Amino acid sequence: MIDLIAKKRDHQELSNAEIEFIITEYTAGNVPDYQMSALLMAIYLNGMNHDETSSLARAMLNSGEKLDLSMIPGTKVDKHSTGGVGDKISIPLAPLVASAGVKNPMISGRGLGHTGGTLDKLEAIPGYQVDETVDQFIQQVQEHGTAIISATKDVAPADRKIYALRDVTSTVEAIPLIASSVMSKKLASGTNALVLDVKVGNGAFMKTEERARKLAETLVEIGRQNQVPCVAYLTDMNQPLGYTIGNALEIKESIDVLRGQGPEDVTELTLILGAEMLVLAKLAENTEDARQILIGKINDGSALAAFKQLISDQNGDASIVDHPEKLPQAAMTLDITAKQAGYVIGMQTNDLGLASVKIGGGRAKKEDKVDPAVGIVLHKKIGDTVEVGESLATLYLNSEAPQEVQDQVLNSFEIGTDRPDPLQLIHEIIH
Amino acid sequence: MIDLIAKKRDHQELSNAEIEFIITEYTAGNVPDYQMSALLMAIYLNGMNHDETSSLARAMLNSGEKLDLSMIPGTKVDKHSTGGVGDKISIPLAPLVASAGVKNPMISGRGLGHTGGTLDKLEAIPGYQVDETVDQFIQQVQEHGTAIISATKDVAPADRKIYALRDVTSTVEAIPLIASSVMSKKLASGTNALVLDVKVGNGAFMKTEERARKLAETLVEIGRQNQVPCVAYLTDMNQPLGYTIGNALEIKESIDVLRGQGPEDVTELTLILGAEMLVLAKLAENTEDARQILIGKINDGSALAAFKQLISDQNGDASIVDHPEKLPQAAMTLDITAKQAGYVIGMQTNDLGLASVKIGGGRAKKEDKVDPAVGIVLHKKIGDTVEVGESLATLYLNSEAPQEVQDQVLNSFEIGTDRPDPLQLIHEIIH
Repeated sequence: MIDLIAKKRDHQELSNAEIEFIITEYTAGNVPDYQMSALLMAIYLNGMNHDETSSLARAMLNSGEKLDLSMIPGTKVDKHSTGGVGDKISIPLAPLVASAGVKNPMISGRGLGHTGGTLDKLEAIPGYQVDETVDQFIQQVQEHGTAIISATKDVAPADRKIYALRDVTSTVEAIPLIASSVMSKKLASGTNALVLDVKVGNGAFMKTEERARKLAETLVEIGRQNQVPCVAYLTDMNQPLGYTIGNALEIKESIDVLRGQGPEDVTELTLILGAEMLVLAKLAENTEDARQILIGKINDGSALAAFKQLISDQNGDASIVDHPEKLPQAAMTLDITAKQAGYVIGMQTNDLGLASVKIGGGRAKKEDKVDPAVGIVLHKKIGDTVEVGESLATLYLNSEAPQEVQDQVLNSFEIGTDRPDPLQLIHEIIH
Repeated sequence: MIDLIAKKRDHQELSNAEIEFIITEYTAGNVPDYQMSALLMAIYLNGMNHDETSSLARAMLNSGEKLDLSMIPGTKVDKHSTGGVGDKISIPLAPLVASAGVKNPMISGRGLGHTGGTLDKLEAIPGYQVDETVDQFIQQVQEHGTAIISATKDVAPADRKIYALRDVTSTVEAIPLIASSVMSKKLASGTNALVLDVKVGNGAFMKTEERARKLAETLVEIGRQNQVPCVAYLTDMNQPLGYTIGNALEIKESIDVLRGQGPEDVTELTLILGAEMLVLAKLAENTEDARQILIGKINDGSALAAFKQLISDQNGDASIVDHPEKLPQAAMTLDITAKQAGYVIGMQTNDLGLASVKIGGGRAKKEDKVDPAVGIVLHKKIGDTVEVGESLATLYLNSEAPQEVQDQVLNSFEIGTDRPDPLQLIHEIIH
């Protein structure tokens, strides 16, 4: 291990066998944390090439259980997002593509830092269970097209152990480590193809176009080397997606999308990513045809019905779809009003995510409980005009919002005098 | 700690208070090894500036006991070598400068890797004790000018703990870490000034002029920031110093130097470094005057008498000075003979050091015992002519030398047809 650390330290390439040795021995407890953390820092600072990163993803995948979905006929297709603020896309997307015939085995995660997590959002639905046995999962995907569950402890245990170490050694934000972590879990789910939503902007983990592109290319290359075709979309995260941040609030907005009444950006991104999934599943010739299919499924109510099916398959109360007032409700609201007039020319998306965490919508520490009812509803987004005293956002609260949080939300809106250019939702597509 | 790791990872400067926090908390066991090793790798790869390195040395110094030598009048001066093969300079140097009036409190180390250690060499003298109480140490320096002992466990415990971690995480060879480790221990000895012998060449830890210069500059700067004036000599280590490698053999050669009969390079380096110590101790105006004083002390026998005094002060048998045959003797010898004629144009100094370790003269693992009697006597050095069948070196052995070691010694002599330029003993002086 000492020699392998030195190799990476000295900018040399680690072989597939060497990476497998490291991961196997670390998972078995034969390589101590202090050696692994020195290696992680060397990887952070010196990088890894595509071959090394693929080897790392495969070694972490092989450290645990892999789901075998071969008894489900057809091409299984999943989607993964690198995480953003107000990013509820998985929730309308999964039932929408399922209603169009896609088999979508989705293993999701929880909120991290300033971003929300699909599992936390689904748990806002009374009764919804994110833990299923492998057999339940397979049966549900086979019968109804989609299931959204959390990873079992047996999936990529090496990733779990390494992630915990990265978290306390400032080695989280390294592209080879992020990419191999994502792909080890996605490859373990048994999917045959994958659409990647790589967020870029001030509310994303990747703040620059360059880093987002590099991550996207790395993810796509790992998929290629493991015979799982991937298409990566670089999408905008310089403002929250939609108008809601917070778990129950985002479920409500997801239902709106499935009714054809959602915010434009959330609806559009759901259709774009969904269309790509249909193409990868060989259910459409091209994304334009696929988009028309999906619009039809929204218009005829099949998408909404598939969401009800998903909820009841996982023991949730599907009546919330027609009665969103049954979702957890916050005790009070507080409006954040504008102090100056003009156009919204920018948003501190990261800060809006953190503000939602601070009022209870996410976790500052792993052991924190999430309050499903609280969050933020935005009334203004980039390009909108604002008058003095107009509400920029409403906080949904179960306890008083500290002044610091109110200020943080207010200051997240950058007001200027000139109308800004509209943001481009899709920055780039990487095959 | 996570933020401090991230700071160094991102090429930012750590403040004195931050470095003190890290060292204090790590020594107290409040920062785990895995965080420290990530930081060490970040320091290895991103470096530290002089202020950070000085802070690190001071923090490690402050983690333990500092000797107070203020009751000894005058300027106390010590010497430190970064380690080489056949580097026995401390042994003739300490009594030589003591005989000229220098107060020399010397805390030495043991062999490391391919290099020997002063303490291992002194322990070849029957009875010699390297462990002394602080009071004994102070009294001996005060009365007889020098004492050569090992560091107590209470000196720079942070350095001890960090060194052990560096050893298993491939972070040994980082200049800021080497420099702060050396200086924390030297500053703890209570010396007022320091001569540094920074070895450069294929038998040194610093293989290139550039790295040796950088280490020397760093060491001198740490001294300056801690009010301990240092002068660093970059000296040649492209062949062993003198003709002997091995503990008892090197004691014998040291005695030759003190009699005025030593090899030219060992004698010359002893005089050069000793002269600088006299100047730092304000016992001579300049190094030329100082050199004449030292030559006088060799010629009139005072230097040899001071060595006898040093040995008996530390419970050793001083009669070995006049009867070196009382030193441990090897059971057998083996000559390594030349297979081709020509000039010695190069020596694999590192390999000669390792060969001596392999026949028992040093430690492959920390817990190994050192055999004081074994070693290598060279008959040829760079620039010498060689005939086929002539002895290049004699191995002094207490067990058969493996063929591999014999080959290693033979192959350490590079024979060519053209007479090489002589090596320059002193490459550079850094104030």
